[in-house]
Amino acid sequence: MNKNSIILVLALVGIAFMTFMLLSIGGKKEEQALLNATPVIKEEGIEARSDEWGKYYPHQYDSWKQTSESSKIEDQLEKYPQLVILWAGYGFAKDYNAPRGHAFALQSNRNTLRTGGPTGADDGPMPMACWTCKSSDVPRLMEKEGELEFFTGKWARAGSEIVNPIGCADCHNTQTSQLELSRPYLKRALEESGQELDKLTFQDMRSLACAQCHSEYYFKKTPYTDKSGKDQVAAVVTFPWAKGLSAENMEEYYNEYGFMDWEHKMSRVPMLKAQHPGYETFTTGIHFKRGLSCADCHMPYTQKGAIKFSTHKIQSPLDNIANSCLTCHRQSEQEFKDIVQEKLDRKNQLNVIAMNSLAAAHLTAKKAWEVGATQAEMAPAIDTIRSAQWLWDYSIASHGSFFHAPGETLRLLGVANNKAQQARITLSGILAKYGVIDYEVPDFSTKEKAQQLAGVPLDKLVDEKQTFRKGLMQEWNNEAVEEGRLTDEFVKGLPEKASYLPE
Amino acid sequence: MNKNSIILVLALVGIAFMTFMLLSIGGKKEEQALLNATPVIKEEGIEARSDEWGKYYPHQYDSWKQTSESSKIEDQLEKYPQLVILWAGYGFAKDYNAPRGHAFALQSNRNTLRTGGPTGADDGPMPMACWTCKSSDVPRLMEKEGELEFFTGKWARAGSEIVNPIGCADCHNTQTSQLELSRPYLKRALEESGQELDKLTFQDMRSLACAQCHSEYYFKKTPYTDKSGKDQVAAVVTFPWAKGLSAENMEEYYNEYGFMDWEHKMSRVPMLKAQHPGYETFTTGIHFKRGLSCADCHMPYTQKGAIKFSTHKIQSPLDNIANSCLTCHRQSEQEFKDIVQEKLDRKNQLNVIAMNSLAAAHLTAKKAWEVGATQAEMAPAIDTIRSAQWLWDYSIASHGSFFHAPGETLRLLGVANNKAQQARITLSGILAKYGVIDYEVPDFSTKEKAQQLAGVPLDKLVDEKQTFRKGLMQEWNNEAVEEGRLTDEFVKGLPEKASYLPE
Repeated sequence: MNKNSIILVLALVGIAFMTFMLLSIGGKKEEQALLNATPVIKEEGIEARSDEWGKYYPHQYDSWKQTSESSKIEDQLEKYPQLVILWAGYGFAKDYNAPRGHAFALQSNRNTLRTGGPTGADDGPMPMACWTCKSSDVPRLMEKEGELEFFTGKWARAGSEIVNPIGCADCHNTQTSQLELSRPYLKRALEESGQELDKLTFQDMRSLACAQCHSEYYFKKTPYTDKSGKDQVAAVVTFPWAKGLSAENMEEYYNEYGFMDWEHKMSRVPMLKAQHPGYETFTTGIHFKRGLSCADCHMPYTQKGAIKFSTHKIQSPLDNIANSCLTCHRQSEQEFKDIVQEKLDRKNQLNVIAMNSLAAAHLTAKKAWEVGATQAEMAPAIDTIRSAQWLWDYSIASHGSFFHAPGETLRLLGVANNKAQQARITLSGILAKYGVIDYEVPDFSTKEKAQQLAGVPLDKLVDEKQTFRKGLMQEWNNEAVEEGRLTDEFVKGLPEKASYLPE
Repeated sequence: MNKNSIILVLALVGIAFMTFMLLSIGGKKEEQALLNATPVIKEEGIEARSDEWGKYYPHQYDSWKQTSESSKIEDQLEKYPQLVILWAGYGFAKDYNAPRGHAFALQSNRNTLRTGGPTGADDGPMPMACWTCKSSDVPRLMEKEGELEFFTGKWARAGSEIVNPIGCADCHNTQTSQLELSRPYLKRALEESGQELDKLTFQDMRSLACAQCHSEYYFKKTPYTDKSGKDQVAAVVTFPWAKGLSAENMEEYYNEYGFMDWEHKMSRVPMLKAQHPGYETFTTGIHFKRGLSCADCHMPYTQKGAIKFSTHKIQSPLDNIANSCLTCHRQSEQEFKDIVQEKLDRKNQLNVIAMNSLAAAHLTAKKAWEVGATQAEMAPAIDTIRSAQWLWDYSIASHGSFFHAPGETLRLLGVANNKAQQARITLSGILAKYGVIDYEVPDFSTKEKAQQLAGVPLDKLVDEKQTFRKGLMQEWNNEAVEEGRLTDEFVKGLPEKASYLPE
């Protein structure tokens, strides 16, 4: 072999190696290009079935399916029987569990005793609005029917239409795949609170997509005339943001509006139920103020081969500390967990204190009514309890407020408890005036005892629900499958869980 | 001029320039070397006069002098008259101002109405221990007399010995200039809480030097026999750290020990006075957990010419945000201030709530005693008030707890207020039993009204103090100057300020 031959061979080996490398890069590029191209899921309208999106976005779809790993039913009424007293006369006193993954949103909504056991389309107890945050069929149906029409009628009216749990179409545009606010009421609320919609950034959207549901709302009675000329009243999901997003801002809004969610069964207080002001509390915390979005921590970037994507296994960042928290916080996972645990412990301590005070206040008010207290005598305590419970509920109803805004949460719990105790002092005075001294509130230390006090007919509610689940609910499913609205084998296969079903 | 000449000239210019640069570096090196060499301030013993240290450490001494810029007298009893009720029967109900700079520590101690107007060495009301944290003469005198001997007798005993405010010798060894714990009680407390003294790092010392004074303490009655064989009782500053540093740990310590600082003049509660557990609350916060020391933020590094040194103008980092906070926190000064202000507002809100509840509890207890409540009836409320006020005081008595440990501060304020309200409910029941319904607590909305309720003879106290200031205090000063213990012209020239002196 002469010198030239050796050079030639070396050159050929070099070329072969470079070609291999280029091909390898080319392969990744191809996959990346496929990802970068915007597939059109459907030419027109909204595609509610996430499995259809999964054909184009397999990584996102697969990770979304993993939200089903968060499947445990944690009965909060067992854990904190005080809640039953606090919500006496309201649906949450019947059944209230800790949240599960997005995949279960619809199932939880159908299975909870709060939505009752309707026997037909016009049967109660809940309105259509109760579907609003449970399903990607909601924007589809809103588009099909119109928003006011969607918010009209009983919950059972659309049982066979609302069949896919929270999914792709809740946050993404079917034609462009871009992040989109699919719920018109959030757009209105943003405008009312002074936000210009056309100035929203991508980073804003990475929080606002979540804020569509993880926010405080009420059902605003809205009269309108339908297409057939008939007078209707819609119960429209509305965010009370016009005065600002703080607990006190919203309280002022509700008080001016003269709103109540229900009258308390024991204390007769016109109550407010805070739903889950997660976005609102987040905006009072340091992560928001330093420019983070919900997705930064709850949907951190993940690498699969050449593909980097935002995981759709939306979960507590504490279940994925390495990829979410530790990208900014330089410390060990254990140190990090210990610090968060401490925040949680603090919130738990003040939460239990406030719940106990509130429960005692409601029960003492009940006693005061029983011994003959007048409306005029009771008025100050009534107002104070309403405010106290609102502030308490705002501070803890959203998932993770202790973490999103630890200072604000502790402040609100402190103020709420102070008001509850203030009401108890006032009520003690009223009781004394009627000759009742040293009144001791009845025992509400278990869910059973508390539900008895609150008059919750648990067995009857479970029976009605089971009848519904075996009857009407099956009809809904069958109809939805027949008409092609529910095609997702994964969704169909989700194990059925509820507080009243055996583990 | 030929080519060689040009090269020669250029070479000479270069050499001249390099020489100049080297000399310049040499100059800086010289200054640095002077700084790096450890001057011996005094061959033996402790040098309490900071001006003597200033000869060797001009930058540190100059910056220390700047603590006199924080000179404003802010009467906290004017701002929060509730405090007078909370401390009825105790010195703090007489006079309590917001802290000033280190330069004023001794002046404030002499001028406050709490230390009274002694007329001679054996006259009260305060013991020697009240000098402990006010002066660099304290370690000098402890060394001279012995620790137990130091802690024996009345405050006025050592008036002419304790004449220099907090200064160099409080934290530095006179021979080596190294950081040193000059107060033996801190060493004992560290050992009792499980800390090994020989394992303390430089970074630990940058906090512990401060912890010598910025900590909770009590005066432990300690019998001993003096050199002349006489039985004595020392009142020794002692840190209640044996069970841990949290509010609850210390409360348990005090309860087991059966300690009280005083009996409340209205409620007759055996009270605890939290002093200023700044170090303890700091250890529950995130800055400590991330490895920071007090000095990192309160004494940030400063550059003066070639010299980099830790500023001894110890102050709130919020007065020096650029050099302290922003070296880690990447945000604008204004953003930073806004976030801190929010933390302060939250604490202020819960603080006022808790103070009002506590004041009402004391006044209601007074009423209950007046109408004939028995010891047995009162016992539960008494215990609850003691605990409530301790937790409140622990959470706010130290400077900046809202910042050092915002979560812990809010938690404690919430729990404290809950207990105060709980006591009020119990006391309402007792009052009702004795026929008193709807008791309204008297008005304590101004310092004057509150001090009248608390029986504070303000005019008399001011007269006594003024007599002392014009008489005995001048004698102390003269003696100290004559005997060469007070040489610092800066200290002598500090403007005299007190709550009862005109601005």
